[in-house]
Amino acid sequence: MPQLLRYVGLDVGGTTMKAAVVDDQGHAFPHVSLPTEPERGQDVGLETMCQTIRKAVTAAGLTLDDIAAIGVATPGTMDLKTGYILDPPNLKPWRNVPVRDHIAHVFGKPTAFQNDANAAAMGEYWTGAGAGVRSLVMFTLGTGVGGGIIVNGEVLEGEHSHGAELGHMKIEMSHPRLCGCGKRGCLEAYASATAVVKRTEEALADVPSPKLHQLRQEKKLTARAIFDAAKEGDPLAVRIVDETAAILALGAANLMHIINPEMVVFAGGMVEAGDWFLQQIRRHVPNFAFPVPAERTQIRFAQLGSDAGFIGAAACARQLVQGALRR
Amino acid sequence: MPQLLRYVGLDVGGTTMKAAVVDDQGHAFPHVSLPTEPERGQDVGLETMCQTIRKAVTAAGLTLDDIAAIGVATPGTMDLKTGYILDPPNLKPWRNVPVRDHIAHVFGKPTAFQNDANAAAMGEYWTGAGAGVRSLVMFTLGTGVGGGIIVNGEVLEGEHSHGAELGHMKIEMSHPRLCGCGKRGCLEAYASATAVVKRTEEALADVPSPKLHQLRQEKKLTARAIFDAAKEGDPLAVRIVDETAAILALGAANLMHIINPEMVVFAGGMVEAGDWFLQQIRRHVPNFAFPVPAERTQIRFAQLGSDAGFIGAAACARQLVQGALRR
Repeated sequence: MPQLLRYVGLDVGGTTMKAAVVDDQGHAFPHVSLPTEPERGQDVGLETMCQTIRKAVTAAGLTLDDIAAIGVATPGTMDLKTGYILDPPNLKPWRNVPVRDHIAHVFGKPTAFQNDANAAAMGEYWTGAGAGVRSLVMFTLGTGVGGGIIVNGEVLEGEHSHGAELGHMKIEMSHPRLCGCGKRGCLEAYASATAVVKRTEEALADVPSPKLHQLRQEKKLTARAIFDAAKEGDPLAVRIVDETAAILALGAANLMHIINPEMVVFAGGMVEAGDWFLQQIRRHVPNFAFPVPAERTQIRFAQLGSDAGFIGAAACARQLVQGALRR
Repeated sequence: MPQLLRYVGLDVGGTTMKAAVVDDQGHAFPHVSLPTEPERGQDVGLETMCQTIRKAVTAAGLTLDDIAAIGVATPGTMDLKTGYILDPPNLKPWRNVPVRDHIAHVFGKPTAFQNDANAAAMGEYWTGAGAGVRSLVMFTLGTGVGGGIIVNGEVLEGEHSHGAELGHMKIEMSHPRLCGCGKRGCLEAYASATAVVKRTEEALADVPSPKLHQLRQEKKLTARAIFDAAKEGDPLAVRIVDETAAILALGAANLMHIINPEMVVFAGGMVEAGDWFLQQIRRHVPNFAFPVPAERTQIRFAQLGSDAGFIGAAACARQLVQGALRR
């Protein structure tokens, strides 16, 4: 029986980078991680990437000869065509880092380079929530709102590496909230974990909620605490969570009318709220979407957690060798 | 020298159907048209489609033996996978019409079937405003707002034939206008020709404009008349047109953050307003889009007018024979 091809997927975050060997069927060997320490500069950063890749190969009990290709995912901003990180807010002071060519040169392997949110969507498409579907749109809810779009096995990268910047879709004109990006009315300004806290703080000025008020006094008013309070029936928290579900349903419906994927996936910290939150999102979708996509589009939580990035990076490496994973 | 392959493109509208032979390089022979008369029923409709195709072949001085494939574009709703028109508002009382298989059977040719707005986008991609680009998003501004998305030569059809329903992207939550589709906050409810008239009528209740008031009294308050009044400096008309440009810029920016195409094309009656309107749209884009796509995305008016549909239908026919027009 021929040996399965194997790939290394590396996911570079602002705090940690994680890597693992992944085989041709998407099974991951144990992953390794190292601190990113972007403040030590990009040359150190590139060397840490190489170390993390080598450690992942060792952790799998393999040698570099066993690896067919490498995939690297990083946060933006970036130029996917040239393989450069440009000016990433989460990796300061890195600037204009030739990630793809550096890794390809050091290891002498085909090397794929991808945005971290796109890679995570690719991971879910390959072996996670989207295993088996032809197309998916993923929203990643964290400090910001990221996105990834996979159509027939291909990442929708866009012409200027700005494909699937779903958090910056404008959804409000009359009273648009200011977004961290400097523009107004972005989905992220309403539905990120940060925005959920901010909306709650504002509402507390008008609506009494002893529970949430106390959390704020103790500086413990996080999105998670608000979701927990909603589960316990706190009326303001219930309202905030329901509004958040409606906003995410609107975002999902917009993508049902643009990409019309087989599945919409939500990922990030908020999915830990549990299935009741997913049900709330689903309940709001028919208010915004046409009947056919509203009925037929699967809406799911992500399944791979923080492994999605390196698994997706490995999927991008696989694509270099095996072509797109069309279904 | 080998003969160029030739295709017939047929564009079925609510009033008229148009067809022409188009050669492999996108050059169209003279087109023909016949009344659609949907009220005569779908069997008559299918026969009229066949007649229009035959007339187009004759008008080109050719015979059916010269035709490699046929493409048919129709208004929605439809199922692109099975090739059926389902329940099209503009073709009542047609319902569940097996367009693709009927045409393929009658002519014994490979037959493509496409949504009319998608086909128009494909036409502009092949030989119109988008000739040479890798990807484009097209907004068609008429009674409603239609859309088409072409990425690397392929129509983004979506899993349930709802890809690129750009008019039903929600852009307002606080005071969402009711859309013809029954939902609220859709782009179409703000930026269609119908919506421009409605917004103007509402504004006339508060803002005096003798010119527009008179047009309304004479039942001549059309989008075109409002654009003309703006050109002549009528302050309310200027405001309405500028707001419309801002709304379209927001819509374009959303697609720059989702598809991130090389070009955004605007088509339909409003483009006759002229280049100053395009300039206004462009001027608003940086308020909504990230700097890189705002600077680099080409924003153009469509070039093919009402020929885009049959040229695009022919492009879809060509794709069956020659594969996608990748760039």
